[in-house]
Amino acid sequence: MQDQLTTALLGQSFSSSSQDTVLLDEYKRLVEGYVDIDHSIAVLSDFQANRSYIYVGSFGQHFGLSYGHIVIESAFEECIFDKVHPDDLTERHILELSYFEHQKSLLPSERKKYSTISRIRASNAEGRYSYINHRTIYLKSQPNDSVWLALCIYAPSIDLLPRPGIDGKIVNRETGESISFEQYRNYGQQLLSRREIEVLNLIAKGMGSKEIAVQLHIAVYTVRRHRQNIIRKIQVSNTAEAVKTGLAIGVVNVLC
Amino acid sequence: MQDQLTTALLGQSFSSSSQDTVLLDEYKRLVEGYVDIDHSIAVLSDFQANRSYIYVGSFGQHFGLSYGHIVIESAFEECIFDKVHPDDLTERHILELSYFEHQKSLLPSERKKYSTISRIRASNAEGRYSYINHRTIYLKSQPNDSVWLALCIYAPSIDLLPRPGIDGKIVNRETGESISFEQYRNYGQQLLSRREIEVLNLIAKGMGSKEIAVQLHIAVYTVRRHRQNIIRKIQVSNTAEAVKTGLAIGVVNVLC
Repeated sequence: MQDQLTTALLGQSFSSSSQDTVLLDEYKRLVEGYVDIDHSIAVLSDFQANRSYIYVGSFGQHFGLSYGHIVIESAFEECIFDKVHPDDLTERHILELSYFEHQKSLLPSERKKYSTISRIRASNAEGRYSYINHRTIYLKSQPNDSVWLALCIYAPSIDLLPRPGIDGKIVNRETGESISFEQYRNYGQQLLSRREIEVLNLIAKGMGSKEIAVQLHIAVYTVRRHRQNIIRKIQVSNTAEAVKTGLAIGVVNVLC
Repeated sequence: MQDQLTTALLGQSFSSSSQDTVLLDEYKRLVEGYVDIDHSIAVLSDFQANRSYIYVGSFGQHFGLSYGHIVIESAFEECIFDKVHPDDLTERHILELSYFEHQKSLLPSERKKYSTISRIRASNAEGRYSYINHRTIYLKSQPNDSVWLALCIYAPSIDLLPRPGIDGKIVNRETGESISFEQYRNYGQQLLSRREIEVLNLIAKGMGSKEIAVQLHIAVYTVRRHRQNIIRKIQVSNTAEAVKTGLAIGVVNVLC
């Protein structure tokens, strides 16, 4: 899933400008101050330079990160992603992709209003999972509308009620209105064709290629080709993983 | 309840120092930047000067407040308190008093770790109540340990599940551990004597002064004096309100 995110965000067209450094420095100061007040961990990612500035507040000790700030040569904070529960990380990436699409559908002036919010499980310094409040805010787009600077904030969650999934939402910060992630995760739908989604759902029901061929009135060869395309497109290594990812991205529906 | 809060916070001893203005300006910039990222409403209160700096992010329109910042000559943001549901406002004040006591019990170096968090109902520009995420952070104490600068942050809550009360907590921002408000709201216990709490609980059970006198083996006159003292101490106008506040501050237990 992260590969799609990388392609979507780093694959945008960027134009260097002399103003960038000044603006970036301004945002760096803002984020540093934010962490000073919030005690959270904030990651300012520059998609143009593929670089991140990680500001570690006192909550950082939860992850075994030490107070201060680090620069990493990647727009993605693998050192934190590594601690996130793999299922939640996949959902988080899908949420960000939905957010990216949602941002693209808005006027640049409207974008700043929205952020994502979710609750992910991350392992602490002792290796035990705990609930983390996660937010993504796209801070700044370039004049050509490409999303340039993003901020991810990690803070402890006080909502400790167990629930499945990350409860991802896109929130309008002006009104408090939130758009459930379910309504927005159409990424999967765009990724796979209607036929591929149909095949993946039959696989999820436990059908073999021959059964699927009969059911859909197509050749077994065609079913096998769909299988391969699904695996390639959603970048997994086998059909079992494809079903799991299909469920996560909302294209597999176990009820029908 | 706000009177107690005013007494506790503004009644501290303060010492002016030439450094104050520089530090205050630094915090003002920090808070302004915080709101710029968070789009929330942040109130920086100076208890020494009895003054507040209100930074209104885009969420301000929810309350009919316009974007920008205002200075008010009070450490308490009445213009926002006015919109908070009265029951929730009382609980919020009690939570802050508990937080104040909790802060006083810590070493100055430990204080910054903790903040309060609660969910309050506030009426929006159309007069309808919605859930607001509320946090209080004491940013800076003076060398004599008096709490000098406080920050209150108002942002939309995405947790829309109805529940009674404000679910107030004191959160350790380093570990995510939260101390339930219930465990900390001993303010009421300090406010009333053991005998007064006993009397208030019997009033809550619907007993009249004569019944209470018999039950406690004291004179009716003494019961009446306790009643008056309770009303005076918790600053309400009648016993019905005293019972309600007693419940809120945790000194009235309806189960025993």
